[in-house]
Amino acid sequence: MDKSIDSATLKAVESAAACGVQTVWDRYEAQKPQCGFGETGLCCRHCLQGPCRISPFGDGARVGVCGANADVMVARGLSRAIAAGTASHGGHAKHLAHTLLRSSIGQAPDYPIKDVNKLKSVAARIGVDIDGMTANDIARVVALRALEDFSEKDEPSTWAATTVTKGRVETFLKYGVVPRGIDSAVSESMHRTTYGVDADAVNILLGAVKCALADYAACHMATDIADILFGTPSPVATMANLGVLRADAVNIALHGHNPLLSDMIAQVAGDPELNEKARAAGAAGGVNVVGVCCTGNEVMMRHKIPLATSSVSQETVILTGALDAMVVDYQCIMPALANVAECFHTRLITTMPIARITGATHIEFHEDGARDSARKIIETAIVAFTKRDPAKVNIPDILTTAFAGFSTEAIVGALSLLDAADPLKPLIDNIVAGNIYGVCLFAGCNTVKVTQDANYVAMIKELAAKNVLILATGCASGAFARHGFMTPEATGKYAGPGLKAVLTAVGQAAGLGGPLPLVLHMGSCVDNSRAADVAVAVANRLGVDLNMLPVVASAPEPVTEKAVAIGTWAVAAGLPTHLGVVPPVIGSSVVTGVLTSAVKDLFGGYFIVEPDPLAAAAKLLAAISERRTGLGLSA
Amino acid sequence: MDKSIDSATLKAVESAAACGVQTVWDRYEAQKPQCGFGETGLCCRHCLQGPCRISPFGDGARVGVCGANADVMVARGLSRAIAAGTASHGGHAKHLAHTLLRSSIGQAPDYPIKDVNKLKSVAARIGVDIDGMTANDIARVVALRALEDFSEKDEPSTWAATTVTKGRVETFLKYGVVPRGIDSAVSESMHRTTYGVDADAVNILLGAVKCALADYAACHMATDIADILFGTPSPVATMANLGVLRADAVNIALHGHNPLLSDMIAQVAGDPELNEKARAAGAAGGVNVVGVCCTGNEVMMRHKIPLATSSVSQETVILTGALDAMVVDYQCIMPALANVAECFHTRLITTMPIARITGATHIEFHEDGARDSARKIIETAIVAFTKRDPAKVNIPDILTTAFAGFSTEAIVGALSLLDAADPLKPLIDNIVAGNIYGVCLFAGCNTVKVTQDANYVAMIKELAAKNVLILATGCASGAFARHGFMTPEATGKYAGPGLKAVLTAVGQAAGLGGPLPLVLHMGSCVDNSRAADVAVAVANRLGVDLNMLPVVASAPEPVTEKAVAIGTWAVAAGLPTHLGVVPPVIGSSVVTGVLTSAVKDLFGGYFIVEPDPLAAAAKLLAAISERRTGLGLSA
Repeated sequence: MDKSIDSATLKAVESAAACGVQTVWDRYEAQKPQCGFGETGLCCRHCLQGPCRISPFGDGARVGVCGANADVMVARGLSRAIAAGTASHGGHAKHLAHTLLRSSIGQAPDYPIKDVNKLKSVAARIGVDIDGMTANDIARVVALRALEDFSEKDEPSTWAATTVTKGRVETFLKYGVVPRGIDSAVSESMHRTTYGVDADAVNILLGAVKCALADYAACHMATDIADILFGTPSPVATMANLGVLRADAVNIALHGHNPLLSDMIAQVAGDPELNEKARAAGAAGGVNVVGVCCTGNEVMMRHKIPLATSSVSQETVILTGALDAMVVDYQCIMPALANVAECFHTRLITTMPIARITGATHIEFHEDGARDSARKIIETAIVAFTKRDPAKVNIPDILTTAFAGFSTEAIVGALSLLDAADPLKPLIDNIVAGNIYGVCLFAGCNTVKVTQDANYVAMIKELAAKNVLILATGCASGAFARHGFMTPEATGKYAGPGLKAVLTAVGQAAGLGGPLPLVLHMGSCVDNSRAADVAVAVANRLGVDLNMLPVVASAPEPVTEKAVAIGTWAVAAGLPTHLGVVPPVIGSSVVTGVLTSAVKDLFGGYFIVEPDPLAAAAKLLAAISERRTGLGLSA
Repeated sequence: MDKSIDSATLKAVESAAACGVQTVWDRYEAQKPQCGFGETGLCCRHCLQGPCRISPFGDGARVGVCGANADVMVARGLSRAIAAGTASHGGHAKHLAHTLLRSSIGQAPDYPIKDVNKLKSVAARIGVDIDGMTANDIARVVALRALEDFSEKDEPSTWAATTVTKGRVETFLKYGVVPRGIDSAVSESMHRTTYGVDADAVNILLGAVKCALADYAACHMATDIADILFGTPSPVATMANLGVLRADAVNIALHGHNPLLSDMIAQVAGDPELNEKARAAGAAGGVNVVGVCCTGNEVMMRHKIPLATSSVSQETVILTGALDAMVVDYQCIMPALANVAECFHTRLITTMPIARITGATHIEFHEDGARDSARKIIETAIVAFTKRDPAKVNIPDILTTAFAGFSTEAIVGALSLLDAADPLKPLIDNIVAGNIYGVCLFAGCNTVKVTQDANYVAMIKELAAKNVLILATGCASGAFARHGFMTPEATGKYAGPGLKAVLTAVGQAAGLGGPLPLVLHMGSCVDNSRAADVAVAVANRLGVDLNMLPVVASAPEPVTEKAVAIGTWAVAAGLPTHLGVVPPVIGSSVVTGVLTSAVKDLFGGYFIVEPDPLAAAAKLLAAISERRTGLGLSA
């Protein structure tokens, strides 16, 4: 299996061998063969009487020491993965909510409220009467409501219940899966999966859906507050791939997830004094900030910061020999970065108390002195630059234009140029007419188990040719950006005639002189909530529920427990949801049956597990066709 | 290895073979050999790029796909176990707090406040000004404060910070391990252990300690509110072991943890109408309720309900053929009970929405109709009794007296008979004089990996002979109860001369006409908080911190993730803490080094991992000796 179809990745990885350092692909090879029990989910370490395992081939023990069978074991494992994903998005959202609160009461002067309109629209959505209130007053109330959403209440989670259709809330209530708190949902999942609690696989899975909906609430909250503090994205043109690093500049990569750190560095990076320091240190090009992973998406959308690469290839940024500092917050940061950095002059800088890496430099980031922390980090990078070995610099000369920043507001804004009174009408009319056959949201990661980007590129070509409108977030965005799919040219080359006409009409109306890009970049992985917003708006406008829409989702190369949580809420939201990697559930026929079939009867959505990208595209098109038929549209 | 040293257990297990049903010991044999990666903690399934594993023998991959080394992998696994334990105790405590709130506002009439003194003392401890308030008013404020303790606050968790010494709070603050919320601590641990977050083993472990202290807060809250709603225990005499089942009665076993369900059934079981129904169905002895596991401890202390057996042998209660209903709530309920029950007429009744078992009868328990639910459950048992096959009944004629219910209040009350003005003085004087050499709290489970009860019995004989005062909770209590150690006779037989004199003096003063029992039964596993209270009271009285006291803890046969959490907070509280089963951490020299040694420099406590019970007793005696020397007492 090839490592990647991205030639920049492949070129950078060559440096690893020269330095004698392992990359993720080497480590994956060293792990093979991976444990078959773990791969099928038939392993349990939830008590000290274990570890227990059940052979997927039917020989040996059929139950664990406690009597848990394969179904219970697999369901428990899946539930814990979703709990961990929810805890991660919850931590991210809570961090933002705390900062919004501090901002509103004058304790975080570096974080003024940037988008008052977004603040007001969020406040209105959650039912805050903002009459006569200042922006800070509103922010305080919104932040407190957000923080309340983490603990168990008698009512449904505000962010879960106010952001979906009425029909979805009723469905969630009917099946007892409405979360009443984000942290409490994580705790409940951890409780019910411990020794001797829940031992009915379907009940465990329903609990997991509840937790996944808490993840949805957390994602949506994170998007909302990031927009309030840093601005709601609108389309920008920038660049992607390793060629965005510059031999003549102090290169700083921002990697991780939360804009609290990265946005501040992006804001400070233009400071003339720091750039003068960089030049004085020998970097004629000054300070050059690039993005990696979801933090890359955040600063790409709001600051036009170019995107260096995506999750699985994060080590390649260091392997160029030109990276002076890799600055990380949390999530998807490979511990291996410390080893790779050791072969170069690169400073790996950790910033969060909950995410240190042995061997890294820790510069703790505090919101109350954010700007100072950002300056200190940049200054550390400048010092590192002076130790750079030019002989080791090997930046692949590969980069491409990428348009990013298609928030829900930006999309609706563009559509309103066609119909100011009813912005969704052109979209709906085109779906009805079949010019837009359906919508596919690509999300998730790059995984070492799939040739990097291969699934994304193969699938988008199939779907776009069939006039499917493509939305993307997270490292799906990164893949499409690096391969030139976030350009008007890609629309010309790959879009079917109907889709091309629609994207061109909107692009012309927006004064672009050409079509919108083939992929609408909606942001980071928490910004999957933006895609949900679009779907909810369309469903409400049509007067149907989400499970009726010709909208599908795909994570062709998923890695993280967050992706498992997101996929699960997408299914609960009613979407047919594709996974390109088999999750560790196939040890249980009950669990696989529920996830891929029975769940459809409850929520309308279901998982499509299909590693082959062409087959996956065909299955998603079939799902769209079925939905179109259901709505009485041409299939 | 023998299954058990309890002849009742051994006798009942014989029936399993006759019925062709497996027990926990058969399932354990079928699992052997257990996975060496899992046993050493060198396995990670925290993302979809795994499963990854590292050979403990030094061959093969040294890091996972992400680059996590053995230290990070092991620390992550341990942290998640503690998170799950904390979530479990948190769920238990939150369930009680919600009920207290409902009780206080008239929404749970079956749960009136039973112990107003306890309510007032808890309110005073957490700083509520109760002047002029009714009991319900106080209860409402206490319940709300308790519920607040689940979400992240700016201040330390109320239940963690107000129940330990001032010195401990300072130490916890110093090392950044003060929890600021119970559910939020669980979420934080899950977040930091997901892919690409915390990759510094020591930092992960400090996070795990913080979560464990949240577990402590949850345990203490559970004890406090259970006492408020159901009464603070005081010593009672009852019976233990399978002989408590009666051939002529409708036998109902209460198994699980939360007194919300079990106390209500215990209250209702004496109802003449129900007993008449039982007699009408042919059960001349009426309704006979027995306890299993921690629920068994709860109802044993408060209702003199006899204890049938402990966790690992829970199946034996059904194997007697005389059990009509096994009624469970959550935690430590083997899913296998459903299979064992199928061989008999026994109804396995699940009651909690988060804990169903495939094959069981689900009668959902709601606090707002608690008494009705309890009646319905008992009626179901009566119907099951009519289907009992007398030929299958085989109740081991083995039982023993057991004294239970030594709450902190009861112990202080007994001591006050010796010195009303300064009740702790006699205890302290005797510790100083060496009549009480030290104190050992036995806690935790029975595990299939150790001959049931063998470690407990071997260790207590050693320690008691050396004048160590023995406290016990959870299934440690069960083990001592079933083997006759909770009797004055055991004091006469096993206590060293100093200890015997002290227990006799207190017993005489209390009007017992003889010594206190050798083991003071303090309750269920959440009631480890009672032992902490005694230690805190002594430390405060002496003006020293907990890490100076000659107090140790032991879990000779631990099973659950809750036990891992409790053990960790015992260490953080400053206690040398013994584990009789090797937890899955030995794959990391850093983690084992921190837990057994380096942690001592931070908190004073540390883990002693020693499977051999005599060696374990010797190590605990050495730890007590070291502490006595530190206090300037005879070692």
